[in-house]
Amino acid sequence: MNQDLQKERAAASFNPELLTHVLDGSPENTRRRREIENLILKDPDFQHEDLNFLSRSQRYEVAVRKSATMVEKMRKFNIADPAEIMWFKKLHLVNFVEPVGLNYSMFIPTLLNQGTTAQQEKWLLSSKGLEIIGTYAQTEMGHGTHLRGLETTATYDPETQEFILNSPTVTSIKWWPGGLGKTSNHAIVLAQLITQGKCYGLHAFIVPIRELGTHKPLPGITVGDIGPKFGYDEMDNGYLKMDNYRIPRENMLMKHAQVKPDGTYVKPLSNKLTYGTMVFIRSFLVGESARCLSKACTIAIRYSAVRHQSEITPGEPEPQILDYQTQQYKLFPLLATAYAFQFVGAYMKETYHRINEDISQGDLSELPELHALAAGLKAFTSWTTNTGIEACRMACGGHGYSHCSGLPNIYVNFTPTCTFEGENTVMMLQTARFLMKSYDQVHSGKLVCGMVSYLNDLPSQHIQPQQVAVWPTVVDINSPDSLTEAYKLRAARLVEIAAKNLQTEVIHRKSKEVAWNLTSVDLVQASEAHCHYVAVKLFSEKLLQIQEKSIQAVLRNLCLLYSLYGISRNAGDFLQGSIMTESQITQVNERIKELLTVIRPDAVALVDAFDFQDVTLGSVLGRYDGNVYENLFEWAKKSPLNKTEVHESYHKHLKSLQSKL
Amino acid sequence: MNQDLQKERAAASFNPELLTHVLDGSPENTRRRREIENLILKDPDFQHEDLNFLSRSQRYEVAVRKSATMVEKMRKFNIADPAEIMWFKKLHLVNFVEPVGLNYSMFIPTLLNQGTTAQQEKWLLSSKGLEIIGTYAQTEMGHGTHLRGLETTATYDPETQEFILNSPTVTSIKWWPGGLGKTSNHAIVLAQLITQGKCYGLHAFIVPIRELGTHKPLPGITVGDIGPKFGYDEMDNGYLKMDNYRIPRENMLMKHAQVKPDGTYVKPLSNKLTYGTMVFIRSFLVGESARCLSKACTIAIRYSAVRHQSEITPGEPEPQILDYQTQQYKLFPLLATAYAFQFVGAYMKETYHRINEDISQGDLSELPELHALAAGLKAFTSWTTNTGIEACRMACGGHGYSHCSGLPNIYVNFTPTCTFEGENTVMMLQTARFLMKSYDQVHSGKLVCGMVSYLNDLPSQHIQPQQVAVWPTVVDINSPDSLTEAYKLRAARLVEIAAKNLQTEVIHRKSKEVAWNLTSVDLVQASEAHCHYVAVKLFSEKLLQIQEKSIQAVLRNLCLLYSLYGISRNAGDFLQGSIMTESQITQVNERIKELLTVIRPDAVALVDAFDFQDVTLGSVLGRYDGNVYENLFEWAKKSPLNKTEVHESYHKHLKSLQSKL
Repeated sequence: MNQDLQKERAAASFNPELLTHVLDGSPENTRRRREIENLILKDPDFQHEDLNFLSRSQRYEVAVRKSATMVEKMRKFNIADPAEIMWFKKLHLVNFVEPVGLNYSMFIPTLLNQGTTAQQEKWLLSSKGLEIIGTYAQTEMGHGTHLRGLETTATYDPETQEFILNSPTVTSIKWWPGGLGKTSNHAIVLAQLITQGKCYGLHAFIVPIRELGTHKPLPGITVGDIGPKFGYDEMDNGYLKMDNYRIPRENMLMKHAQVKPDGTYVKPLSNKLTYGTMVFIRSFLVGESARCLSKACTIAIRYSAVRHQSEITPGEPEPQILDYQTQQYKLFPLLATAYAFQFVGAYMKETYHRINEDISQGDLSELPELHALAAGLKAFTSWTTNTGIEACRMACGGHGYSHCSGLPNIYVNFTPTCTFEGENTVMMLQTARFLMKSYDQVHSGKLVCGMVSYLNDLPSQHIQPQQVAVWPTVVDINSPDSLTEAYKLRAARLVEIAAKNLQTEVIHRKSKEVAWNLTSVDLVQASEAHCHYVAVKLFSEKLLQIQEKSIQAVLRNLCLLYSLYGISRNAGDFLQGSIMTESQITQVNERIKELLTVIRPDAVALVDAFDFQDVTLGSVLGRYDGNVYENLFEWAKKSPLNKTEVHESYHKHLKSLQSKL
Repeated sequence: MNQDLQKERAAASFNPELLTHVLDGSPENTRRRREIENLILKDPDFQHEDLNFLSRSQRYEVAVRKSATMVEKMRKFNIADPAEIMWFKKLHLVNFVEPVGLNYSMFIPTLLNQGTTAQQEKWLLSSKGLEIIGTYAQTEMGHGTHLRGLETTATYDPETQEFILNSPTVTSIKWWPGGLGKTSNHAIVLAQLITQGKCYGLHAFIVPIRELGTHKPLPGITVGDIGPKFGYDEMDNGYLKMDNYRIPRENMLMKHAQVKPDGTYVKPLSNKLTYGTMVFIRSFLVGESARCLSKACTIAIRYSAVRHQSEITPGEPEPQILDYQTQQYKLFPLLATAYAFQFVGAYMKETYHRINEDISQGDLSELPELHALAAGLKAFTSWTTNTGIEACRMACGGHGYSHCSGLPNIYVNFTPTCTFEGENTVMMLQTARFLMKSYDQVHSGKLVCGMVSYLNDLPSQHIQPQQVAVWPTVVDINSPDSLTEAYKLRAARLVEIAAKNLQTEVIHRKSKEVAWNLTSVDLVQASEAHCHYVAVKLFSEKLLQIQEKSIQAVLRNLCLLYSLYGISRNAGDFLQGSIMTESQITQVNERIKELLTVIRPDAVALVDAFDFQDVTLGSVLGRYDGNVYENLFEWAKKSPLNKTEVHESYHKHLKSLQSKL
């Protein structure tokens, strides 16, 4: 083993295996996860080639082949539980990009949720066997966030009992669906339903786009790949244009709404249930943020333990760069954040399942809060992770810029999380809408419950944003509970400010909507403060559940660092509300520096506890046993530019170049 | 022209042409710049193909071809002035990556600065004619920042009058030099000089690495490409390993230090002059930050004027996304920053030339401050630009993630600026060293001058970090001068805190070096505050030089926004020093929102004034006349995944996939 890493591991104050159990939820979960991972790691059918050396077309082909192997193996190994599927795919696909994936994650589930029994009978079996390969086409070139703005039409023709699908404008061309560019032969298309001369809004239709057998686009269909992107090289995100393209009436998914043969529209009973899928995906993305930030920290911290550079004391050997305070200040708050997000992710997963249970019992009371929380936390965690991955990459210096570090790939495949499944700013404003509703409720004399219950204290305190010393400033900077309280007060203050500014704008501008827009910067800040409070709260509550003393101690330091770092970076908020004094902020800054020193000896063990396999990290710099430089040299030699044929063609150029001068 | 952009341009309060003259320095500069740009735009020999659709090997070949055409044309058009060369290359190469570039930017200049007349006679002509293609090999796999740590050795053998070059370890392999991987046949290699049994430190040697004629690596040389990176696809950054590789004594560059035939070492007269090149490059990178952030703002603001989405008021047509306050809050502070950096870049260029003039007269007095300023501002502007480009990209939603936006390429080719030519944290600590020296100087009774002269006021004021109301809080948030004063006080306070913390650590720890490390987070913050003050000061001073009222008015608003946004984001610093009161911070936040509204009608004209050609932007979303969606569709059709041959191979996969299920 690498000597530096060996020393680091020997010096740790705790056994990382025990912390892994905490992160997985139980020792049994850890065992089962590793069992599944080993199915892949020990199977010769899985080749873990390095995609970095391939062109985009080659990467796409590898991904298709891997998708096929994966489907086959999951059947063979009988892996069906969603969490297990996730582990399996994570390890197998490294960055979780698979062209055939939408067939299983969107096409089949939508068919199950929105299709009648007859429709399921017709399409389910062949889509499970990949005779039909489906995707889900919603976003258009000109329309993403605003669903009502989608332009694609499905006009019912009672003469032939068909729908006529049209992309009436350039902006209406379907754009982005994964697997649409080359892979799929069917798509579930979202279109404005028009029947008997009236538009009934968005409905879902099963649309054959390529001929079975030849895989050629069907007449009336224009379909292809939307071109190269920042990342997701393996994914054929596609476009779809339809010109008077006819499908049978039976291709409209009719479990809820229906169009009768004569064109009569029958409306669905309830719209609320589609809510659930969005909440599920956003909750999942919170965990995804945690995983990606944990990966980035693993790579950057291991590399920082192995890399020696410059000098702290002249004449001594070059120290590990992890010994520089500036390096610790870059990485340890991110490590603490990764742990915070792991616990937030676990909480969101639990909460989703609990509330989903309630919903199936007909109790929808907690859905609005869950919806607001999932939206806000998706945005909050993905924004932080997004900048965090890049901070980890840049903390690896020059080698961080090379694909050998694995960090560029983690970043480019993670960053869309800030945009898809609800653009982050839009998400924050959804959370803000819930906060404003809760605020109004409290002010009309009703109590609110759940994570926003701190708002109940507001009216009795008559807080003025400018007012000094409203709250007793007895923050104990060494107590996670007390720090949670400070974050709560900050959130309450920013919610109050946003609410009052909104009221002022309403008075001045008359239109509520214009007022909302002119307060939206404040509203986003209120939501961020709310989410930050939730993260700090969940982390500090998690500490109470840990029995093992050594684990509790190390997590407590991370929790303190996470909370104090947030205070230091947002000191203005804590000072303005007189939540903390100037001298307390100075103490916070000093305490952070102490914590860096305290965490330093455990840093490598703390990332080991995330328990990523080398293949999953996809990094030469971050391997568990890092013979970094030897590995790096071997890796570089594989560069396609080192092939002889490229050399020959360059040499030709060189000669013509010289002859001109 | 696109209707939205047309309306925006018609509504602007000023003529962007006049602002372009301000940015270029004079109308004459603008004229000449455009003249040079048109040489390229109207020349059929220049093909502006879209590199996004090519593999890395193809991109490399295009870059080599372009390099050749460029060298040829610059001779033909007689372009020799460094600024003119820059315009020419910028437009031609879009992202300024050229494998042959190092021959002109590093190999030839080093030969001129460090080679004797005889050495210049021997190599200069053939390197200008590209018979010799040179690069500059300094960084090693294990060593970047710390030059003394470089391991490559050049041992003199008086018997044969040769130097024996060796890469004694894996970590000593030269790593990263541009053009080394495939393009060059010579390299200037930095190595530890050993003669008569003694090591004399780093010296430069001209090393032939590939055979002229065949371009094959010479015996004893192992050379190749270091593999794929985040960006710089067109550049063959390379590695070089030397095994007992012999070169004649005359290949050591001997203008300053020398090794006599018998092995006697003659040391150079002064070491200071190599300083100059570093300062020049870092000053240049400040301007580069300004240009890249300006590009990103141009794309994001034009797209935001053209993109319509969602609704502010229900029932009305979808508004331009530039009308959302959250979008303005993302983009306008960055626009203001881009202008600030343009002026900081111009100042650095001027100052460099002024001080260089002094140096050539033998006056080195201002060099330390220039060196500190270049280091700090390189880090300050590149960090801000780095996050700014990504903020612009994400502000373009989904399309920002596609290479059609041009933004991913701008980002990946800019981000190494944070690492190369001095890693940013290291740079900030160099600036801090100068600040600490200046602070000590003031405290020993001497006055300091230049940008740090505010430190002269510190001892008389006896500031205590905790002390309240030391300075009169009469900040006028509508006066750029008064805001500059506030930034000055913040910088003074943070320098003082860092200095005092450093003293405290010295007392506790005894070793100065350990104390420095344990204060380095404070030191970096002090440097950042100093650089921020310099940027605000230069922007507000620039306003005084503008005659034209309409231009002055619009720049004044940008200067206010830049200054106030910085205060809002760092409110803690301004509150803690009692530089501003809580109610003033609230006013700052309100004033920022007003300024967003004020700047809104001029936003498109403000980016037009940067005067980027469409080819230079490399963006479908940001074109001057943006028929965005039509262009986007045309662009996407060119995706290599849409070629028939790729379709066929996929179809084969599909069949085998189906047969398994």
